[in-house]
Amino acid sequence: MNPKIEKLIKLFARLPRVGNRGGQRIALALLQDKTGRGNALASAIIDAMENIAPCPNCGVLTDRGGGVCEFCRDASRQNGGLCIVRDLSDVWTLEKSSVFHGRYHIIGGLLSGASGVLPQDLNIQNLASRIAAEKITEIIFALPNTVEGKTTQHYIMSVLSDCSEVAFTELASGVPLGGELDYIDDGTLSLAFGGRKSL
Amino acid sequence: MNPKIEKLIKLFARLPRVGNRGGQRIALALLQDKTGRGNALASAIIDAMENIAPCPNCGVLTDRGGGVCEFCRDASRQNGGLCIVRDLSDVWTLEKSSVFHGRYHIIGGLLSGASGVLPQDLNIQNLASRIAAEKITEIIFALPNTVEGKTTQHYIMSVLSDCSEVAFTELASGVPLGGELDYIDDGTLSLAFGGRKSL
Repeated sequence: MNPKIEKLIKLFARLPRVGNRGGQRIALALLQDKTGRGNALASAIIDAMENIAPCPNCGVLTDRGGGVCEFCRDASRQNGGLCIVRDLSDVWTLEKSSVFHGRYHIIGGLLSGASGVLPQDLNIQNLASRIAAEKITEIIFALPNTVEGKTTQHYIMSVLSDCSEVAFTELASGVPLGGELDYIDDGTLSLAFGGRKSL
Repeated sequence: MNPKIEKLIKLFARLPRVGNRGGQRIALALLQDKTGRGNALASAIIDAMENIAPCPNCGVLTDRGGGVCEFCRDASRQNGGLCIVRDLSDVWTLEKSSVFHGRYHIIGGLLSGASGVLPQDLNIQNLASRIAAEKITEIIFALPNTVEGKTTQHYIMSVLSDCSEVAFTELASGVPLGGELDYIDDGTLSLAFGGRKSL
């Protein structure tokens, strides 16, 4: 195979959920396209790589050198709520569902002995100062409902133990909407039982 | 969402088998990557778009301005066999299986009233001259086993009806290796019965 095409396929194949076959299809589609899609994609990548950086306040990717991000600029979002998430895709998911209209804080990972993620790797250094500066009254943990997620959540709570005026909350665990009991794992069922509500 | 990121996601999402969710994951992976994967990908795309073009002889994508492709240059492949395929991914599939060691000819599409592909859209103008110049003795049709594939095959045979010294063959139809009869469609079964071999 032509080395230029092979290199292109390899680079595409390494992207999330693409793989070798997908990389071949994408490379062929771009090379056979006559509308300049390939060059448009290349310049969009370069533009984004050069001009996008994490918001210095909350970690959401935004225009480099443009100060804080759209969420941190939006005064209507300074309503006391701060949602702690792992990464930007979680922000997008929450924004799409419109369940939350406050500020976000992206910590960028979860504590994990297996992957070697340590407390200093988390973006939490400015959390205490944000709580004071943005008058945060509730911190909502929207981290994955896994051992790593819960460990990270407990660690952050211990770091913020001095912030006595802040309420800490986490998303409810339980049976998902439309979930049938025989398809639900024991762990979820146990959490749903433990958290049952009176009617 | 930041317009630069949104644009990047949209361009990725339009690639084959990526979609909106995949586009989001890819864009995030590139933007959060610290090893320069994004810029490497962008320059590989630009390099390929600028320097890759179809081989003037057979249509396989190759270095622009470098004459004919690796297959057409390789004298050991001038053995009288010419395999007609729809596109480059078919060439890659055949090459991987090592069943054929001859020359290829990519026609670039299949005749189809529905998609408006006409005879002049097929890359077959130089087929007759290739047969003479490269001493082709057998043309192997490896087009999709569909109505469009067979229509295109018959059309090409009619165009080449003057080449009486060439044998035309097509790939065998039948039960795939490991195929169980109750999972095979009636059309394939009928072809397999019609083409049954004596033992």
